[in-house]
Amino acid sequence: MISRDPKQLFIEARSGSRVALARLLTYVESGGALHRQTVAEAYQSTSPYVIGITGPPGAGKSTLTDRLIGEALSVGGFDGQHPFETIAILAVDPTSPFTGGAILGDRVRMQEHATDDRVFIRSMATRGHLGGLSLAVPDAIRVLGAVGFSVVLVETVGVGQMEVEIASAADTTIVVTIPGAGDSMQANKAGLLEVADLFVVNKADRPDVASVRRDLEQMLDLGGERAWRPTITDTVATDGRGLSELWSAITAHRLFIERDDTFMERRRMRTRVELQRVLSAVVANRVRELANGEAYEAQVARLVSGECDPYTAADVLLQS
Amino acid sequence: MISRDPKQLFIEARSGSRVALARLLTYVESGGALHRQTVAEAYQSTSPYVIGITGPPGAGKSTLTDRLIGEALSVGGFDGQHPFETIAILAVDPTSPFTGGAILGDRVRMQEHATDDRVFIRSMATRGHLGGLSLAVPDAIRVLGAVGFSVVLVETVGVGQMEVEIASAADTTIVVTIPGAGDSMQANKAGLLEVADLFVVNKADRPDVASVRRDLEQMLDLGGERAWRPTITDTVATDGRGLSELWSAITAHRLFIERDDTFMERRRMRTRVELQRVLSAVVANRVRELANGEAYEAQVARLVSGECDPYTAADVLLQS
Repeated sequence: MISRDPKQLFIEARSGSRVALARLLTYVESGGALHRQTVAEAYQSTSPYVIGITGPPGAGKSTLTDRLIGEALSVGGFDGQHPFETIAILAVDPTSPFTGGAILGDRVRMQEHATDDRVFIRSMATRGHLGGLSLAVPDAIRVLGAVGFSVVLVETVGVGQMEVEIASAADTTIVVTIPGAGDSMQANKAGLLEVADLFVVNKADRPDVASVRRDLEQMLDLGGERAWRPTITDTVATDGRGLSELWSAITAHRLFIERDDTFMERRRMRTRVELQRVLSAVVANRVRELANGEAYEAQVARLVSGECDPYTAADVLLQS
Repeated sequence: MISRDPKQLFIEARSGSRVALARLLTYVESGGALHRQTVAEAYQSTSPYVIGITGPPGAGKSTLTDRLIGEALSVGGFDGQHPFETIAILAVDPTSPFTGGAILGDRVRMQEHATDDRVFIRSMATRGHLGGLSLAVPDAIRVLGAVGFSVVLVETVGVGQMEVEIASAADTTIVVTIPGAGDSMQANKAGLLEVADLFVVNKADRPDVASVRRDLEQMLDLGGERAWRPTITDTVATDGRGLSELWSAITAHRLFIERDDTFMERRRMRTRVELQRVLSAVVANRVRELANGEAYEAQVARLVSGECDPYTAADVLLQS
């Protein structure tokens, strides 16, 4: 029998139990008391290095992620000499209603490494609790860090606000585009420009690669001076072309943010945003609790009879 | 000089000053201390009867609203004998960044009654404060009620979540559609079906009226048994066709909800939702305050150094 106790599960997960790890991730997804114990433990370790990958559906992100796993495990880690021993992938799909690490889909999507012991893949989809994915993903990252993963790939499907939000919580954020995807990029240009550290033009064996590249360069020119100008890498994920260049670009960006002192500043920024999100979620939960019960109905009755205004009623509820 | 004191402004607005009324509405839009005083006063009166009109852009809602004003002021009010002496219109446009009752646009949109003393028209657009329009509109309705308007038309542009939310806070909600608007309706079918008390097929001189009607009837059939089955009225707002039928339908619905005891239940429901919205907004404001300042930065520092998890940090902030 596998334990239900987070502390025990961390011990088991650290010594390699994927079942224990999966259970811890379920805790952070589902909220409740075990969630609190899990994060209290998880946040005692520092965050792993997070690589975010986002872009429109059909851009080939899963295949690209699959190839990146290969690079991370073979080429030589961040220093070019020590390949990572393990790597974790969070595949985030805000549009999908189901979740859970055990679903077949995960394994199928990243075929090459589906049976690789060094690779841990987890799908995360929308749950109705707290702040949903935008809270669960950071928590899951910390759990993965705490059980020994030093690098986590977070792949998000889509280019909506939430996907960008999640991807931008990464240390290195990769925005994937493809020739002919102009419209879907267009809609989010400003947001994507802000979060992208690296651009990838995938499916670069298609026509019009040059024009996508030109668009991106122009976009970057308009964006003004920045300490780090996002690089643009052409890839054909299906046959591995451009992948080693992309891994080099990731490594270069990592070196840049570490050298440039921006690393800690980024983490501090991220922490600031994260805390605000948690704060809002915790408070929203309390509001939901307040909005059920006798005290609430008493205020509703007062309002219906015109005894007070809703702001006064809210104050009364908050003071109780 | 016009007063700045809400109590004084209410007195002036009740004796007919539109400038005083406009200022009170500005208070409810802009938040702050005067907002609190204004709503405290406004909520002492009961709510006026609210007719909500929503539907996709281009459905002719403004012209329809214009015609409904005419019906309300001439035909004979709700009892068929006593026309309303005055009527207020809130034209809500969540996509527009500007606001204010004095803009020319309001007057132009509803030409027929632009210079009619009995008619008060106010545009409301997005403001960045508190819960924005979804709070400001209910507050504005109460202000209008408190200064003597017994009926308020709330016209919302668009069929998004917020428009539907606002429209559904009405006693009678009219969903306007037109022949050929299938797609925009489609996207919100479930939502619209839930909120609509009356359907209007406007521009009914166009081809395909029959098929829109058939679609709506089918939708209603699928919706299952309800105490009130929404009626469908064909109109041509530009020449007034179908308008007296629509007014009759509104009156019939009003009679139904009053007779059926659902009136108070609707108001109670609406009040419940309203209070929850205010509660969330008030709390969100406090969170925003908490997220700025030394205490917050102290918690961020603790998080960055791995001393605690964000949920614990949030608890500490909330207890302070």
